[in-house]
Amino acid sequence: MDLDFIKKLTKPSDTKIVLLVMDGLGGLPRKQDNLTELEAARTPFLDSLATKSICGLQQPVASGITPGSGPGHLSLFGYNPIKYQVGRGVLSAIGINFDLKSNDLAARGNFCTVDNNGLVVDRRAGRIPTEKNKELCNILRNIEIPDVEFFIETVKEYRFSLVLRGEGLSGNLIDTDPQMLGKKPLQPKGLSPETEKTVRIVSNFIEQTSELLKDQDLANMVLLRGFSKKSNWPTMKDVFGLNCAAIAAYPMYRGLAKLLGMGILETGQEVKDEFNTLSDNWSKYDFFYLHIKKSDSAGEDGNFDEKVARIEEVDEQIPRLLDLYPDVVIVTGDHSTPSLMKYHSWHPVPVLLYSKYCRADRVEKFGERACITGGLGPRFLAEDLLPLALANAKRLEKFGA
Amino acid sequence: MDLDFIKKLTKPSDTKIVLLVMDGLGGLPRKQDNLTELEAARTPFLDSLATKSICGLQQPVASGITPGSGPGHLSLFGYNPIKYQVGRGVLSAIGINFDLKSNDLAARGNFCTVDNNGLVVDRRAGRIPTEKNKELCNILRNIEIPDVEFFIETVKEYRFSLVLRGEGLSGNLIDTDPQMLGKKPLQPKGLSPETEKTVRIVSNFIEQTSELLKDQDLANMVLLRGFSKKSNWPTMKDVFGLNCAAIAAYPMYRGLAKLLGMGILETGQEVKDEFNTLSDNWSKYDFFYLHIKKSDSAGEDGNFDEKVARIEEVDEQIPRLLDLYPDVVIVTGDHSTPSLMKYHSWHPVPVLLYSKYCRADRVEKFGERACITGGLGPRFLAEDLLPLALANAKRLEKFGA
Repeated sequence: MDLDFIKKLTKPSDTKIVLLVMDGLGGLPRKQDNLTELEAARTPFLDSLATKSICGLQQPVASGITPGSGPGHLSLFGYNPIKYQVGRGVLSAIGINFDLKSNDLAARGNFCTVDNNGLVVDRRAGRIPTEKNKELCNILRNIEIPDVEFFIETVKEYRFSLVLRGEGLSGNLIDTDPQMLGKKPLQPKGLSPETEKTVRIVSNFIEQTSELLKDQDLANMVLLRGFSKKSNWPTMKDVFGLNCAAIAAYPMYRGLAKLLGMGILETGQEVKDEFNTLSDNWSKYDFFYLHIKKSDSAGEDGNFDEKVARIEEVDEQIPRLLDLYPDVVIVTGDHSTPSLMKYHSWHPVPVLLYSKYCRADRVEKFGERACITGGLGPRFLAEDLLPLALANAKRLEKFGA
Repeated sequence: MDLDFIKKLTKPSDTKIVLLVMDGLGGLPRKQDNLTELEAARTPFLDSLATKSICGLQQPVASGITPGSGPGHLSLFGYNPIKYQVGRGVLSAIGINFDLKSNDLAARGNFCTVDNNGLVVDRRAGRIPTEKNKELCNILRNIEIPDVEFFIETVKEYRFSLVLRGEGLSGNLIDTDPQMLGKKPLQPKGLSPETEKTVRIVSNFIEQTSELLKDQDLANMVLLRGFSKKSNWPTMKDVFGLNCAAIAAYPMYRGLAKLLGMGILETGQEVKDEFNTLSDNWSKYDFFYLHIKKSDSAGEDGNFDEKVARIEEVDEQIPRLLDLYPDVVIVTGDHSTPSLMKYHSWHPVPVLLYSKYCRADRVEKFGERACITGGLGPRFLAEDLLPLALANAKRLEKFGA
């Protein structure tokens, strides 16, 4: 939905909305009993909530499109995920909780291996351990480049994040990763005239890097991808009039929430920790985004039973959530991650929306196939969920006379 | 879906997709038992496939819009049928298998009858027999026009196809058909300056035609409509990375497929011939479009039982299709043609999509009403079917990080 359109309709209220995101929630049926992870899970509290809710399946982007975590979440937050795209460099930086400023230019980096002729022979430098990565980042911090400050931070194994800070930087650069073996890393190259300064700086950084790493066994070069800056998007407060808080154990989801101006709440690593944080901060915000990572991780590992267990763990916390008397509750995922596929997928994600005014349908079980006949339909556009939540929270005016 | 968006996400694979189009598949219930043609048909193989598929009803253009064969097919091929419109002159030419070149200008022609004052008294010249049409076309081939080559070809009864070949022709002309009786045929007229040459040529053609036909009883004049050129659209190979083949007994459908760069396979007139052609060429392509005409013809004739029989004839071939182990199968129609209406209609068309990853719903019968509760929903946009097929064939990358 157009943000300017919805913004004009918002009105203040003291109602509270909870968006509970079980990452990678949607699945595919296993052979033995033709049940998906969510269908196989014992979820008495979610089923009971579904009975009082309007249910359906939501599509984060479009039919057949498999969303990354960025688009999957932006659509849940009401932002069109094709219009509002997070650059890969930015996502990498916020994923390690780097405090990215407006004009910072971020890139994803790989340590890689090149041979004597400078040709890439391993794009991941033999997946060096994270400790080695930290050591190499320390070496590279000795680089000096005029006119610019830079930050190089370990992500994991061969991956790092590079942030350049200075005036007049542009993200309109090609990746230096040739994406195949036996080729030289590509020279930094701008795609528009205003990139001249940035190209000079990045080239300088790479030359010095090459020199500093030349005696390393495996990680003797770097590849840079996804140059991008943080966009100046309207915040959720601007658009929807909501004081928003994010409760997420993983830094990347906190980073995404921060991009939209949400407050970030300290929390623990366990599911129950996140619900504790919710209770503790209940009076302070209008909108709570609560992110559960482990359902996705289990799906990515292809571990059906583990995903079932993680869903059941969330189910147990539902009574605590309802005891807070939220005005609107949405339970869904940012995309599907079927254990069968061990990867994000395009399949629509089960969703329920509960409120006193939701007009419950006949769905009595929270699951992929039960939700098909729900009132939201089997292909509800994810970015319309937030406006619907606002309506149910009596936070939207009538449109037109 | 935007073709540039989807193009960026495609990736190569060795998977195979079959799109089986039963022309005019959707229907309306007859009185005696309240069953549609597809519901009345005995289709054990399609029902069994539906049980393993995700099902629904698809809409070729939009609610309430009755599609012609052009839009009905373009949307199934993933092209927005409002953005990508085939000119009527072009459709007429490709419908008789005319080998239209990039710069050719095509028009639909009618032989008509004018009175002594030149006023149209019959827009179809008494529906002269096709043989007479051929004789008249032979006469008109004596016309000579400077700067241009032309082709005049019989279509059927009073209808012919006119193609002009030369430099600098434009299709931005009004029709010469006044669309009512008692008026003179309209003078060729351009709608923009670059049409000057074309107007001169068409006027010249009409003057000579009028002279050559003046002594004919019925067909003593012509009306021209739908001036158009073949568009330079991106091919399905360009956009989706698919090597496509079309198997269709009727020339117009081969022509449509050719517009999108599909390979055209020789086949016979019977349903089983088309499935033979599919088997024989299985190793050579990624995507097969298989078109069955007879379901539509029966609908247009208002012959309910005949349409049922033609659907059952296709059902019998389904095991042969599945024996090829296609990765993705779509079965649907390009529009509905209810026998009750004897014409194309706006009603959504039953559709099933089968793949190992389709997430089957609870639909166990392939029919209009059974498909309403399918996972694709009762109004799935037809142009999203191809992206969904690509996803199921593992031919799409994740969108965003």
